Amino acid sequence: MDIAGYLQGKKRIIDGALEKIIPKETDFPQTLHRAMRYTLFPGGKRIRPILAMTAYEVVGGKENGIVPYACALEFIHTYSLIHDDLPALDNDDSRRGRPTSHRVFGEGMATLAGDALLTEAFHLMTRETLRGEVDPRVAMEVIDEISKAAGFTGMIAGQVVDIESEGKKVELPVLEFIHTHKTGSLILASVRTGGRLGGASDVEMESLTRYGKAIGLAFQITDDILDVEGSRASMGRAPGVDKARNKITYPALLGLEESKRRCNELIGQAVAALELFGARGETFREIALYIGKRRS
Amino acid sequence: MDIAGYLQGKKRIIDGALEKIIPKETDFPQTLHRAMRYTLFPGGKRIRPILAMTAYEVVGGKENGIVPYACALEFIHTYSLIHDDLPALDNDDSRRGRPTSHRVFGEGMATLAGDALLTEAFHLMTRETLRGEVDPRVAMEVIDEISKAAGFTGMIAGQVVDIESEGKKVELPVLEFIHTHKTGSLILASVRTGGRLGGASDVEMESLTRYGKAIGLAFQITDDILDVEGSRASMGRAPGVDKARNKITYPALLGLEESKRRCNELIGQAVAALELFGARGETFREIALYIGKRRS
Repeated sequence: MDIAGYLQGKKRIIDGALEKIIPKETDFPQTLHRAMRYTLFPGGKRIRPILAMTAYEVVGGKENGIVPYACALEFIHTYSLIHDDLPALDNDDSRRGRPTSHRVFGEGMATLAGDALLTEAFHLMTRETLRGEVDPRVAMEVIDEISKAAGFTGMIAGQVVDIESEGKKVELPVLEFIHTHKTGSLILASVRTGGRLGGASDVEMESLTRYGKAIGLAFQITDDILDVEGSRASMGRAPGVDKARNKITYPALLGLEESKRRCNELIGQAVAALELFGARGETFREIALYIGKRRS
Repeated sequence: MDIAGYLQGKKRIIDGALEKIIPKETDFPQTLHRAMRYTLFPGGKRIRPILAMTAYEVVGGKENGIVPYACALEFIHTYSLIHDDLPALDNDDSRRGRPTSHRVFGEGMATLAGDALLTEAFHLMTRETLRGEVDPRVAMEVIDEISKAAGFTGMIAGQVVDIESEGKKVELPVLEFIHTHKTGSLILASVRTGGRLGGASDVEMESLTRYGKAIGLAFQITDDILDVEGSRASMGRAPGVDKARNKITYPALLGLEESKRRCNELIGQAVAALELFGARGETFREIALYIGKRRS
């Protein structure tokens, strides 16, 4: 199958939906809305919403029902990028080839734009549930899981441990904690959100969970590898920043070859987790392989 | 009635519930949880949760059902204080007589502690809905309203306009926008949350809405007045900071006497809105009068 075309098509749907949902730059107060849009567009690969949409389709959901929840996941991801880029956190000057939010709008507005995107993620999900056809109890379970994945036992815990580990000698379990929390938990929640809203059975949810865990960690290991091997042109930011910042990474801890081996192992686990779905799992299989081979 | 005793009793219930909900300082990663607790305890007047609990009781709800949602409102309020105090925003060094979060934990951890409290507010509400007896659709409406009140058309819009107005000549409509959004929208949402979860009828919700709007604005006007007339001892921070920062306030725009007159007018409106409730409205009447006369 044409996985690149599939991903592009899904990204277009997400981009169109985000465009409709987010306030216009001319709405008052304009600076806030400009700042919210600035990091959201043109945006990145939209991998989290795509995973949610794909999981939804794999288990038999109808395409459009998932879209608002998929957009909410992208809001949460985008807020985390804006806040993580702040000088007091990762202190990144550029992202996706452009100056980061606080470089353009100032730290105060960047903080508030992040806050607004995080809050709007929840508003979007509740509003669309009230308008749509999803059983409110199922939606409540989904929102519960997403808020947990994004919160102090999930993504934020990962970011905290990441910051506190900078410049320190860190062992593999701590690095795995950072990666499975900072990136992994929202990726897993994205896959499970699609499954749950699409009406997955318990065994299907179990397969999706194993798949989501494996690709979540693989995604972050490839990120670490790209920071060593990637080019500025393909990534939109300078490679080598992890090393310059004394960030602990898989290649730094295990070497490049062993990191690649682990990544391939995880991709293998992800593909194996799809067995239950037979031919229906084809797209997810291709996405897993794509993550293993990605160059940006 | 002994309104001071009533408020103290409710504050104790909220404090006890918050203590149970929030992670221990010994949980990993400890710094995050210390930072979350630091601004949450001992905390302030807990006015938002108390309003939610009182509204709930006024319309006939049973006391404990509202508590998790009341705590979530306090989480959202606390996150907004932590972020607003940051150097890039209001740049406050002290709050409630202690150094602000970023002065103790650094800006990065303060940002993340705020993010964690905001996210956990939503997680708390969804989790407790799934465990409890509230109809998920009603809870969804409540969470929808709270997320809207806290978001880019509510509290955050107020904060943005507040920052952007510093040092500028501002007219009354802009000042009213700031106050009704920055403080008013979450206070109104607190009152309405209690009403909705307590099973208020449409006309009861309408009365509660008028009451919540009036006390929300009155609360902020008294805040402005206290900044002029209050003492450091009663407020836990230096008076006169608004003026020093060129913040626009009611006394600065209308004078102290006219500000007090407007405040009394709003308290009168709030009391009038309670007519429907008869004797049941007594506590809310006392709370409105208390807001009008508060000295801290």
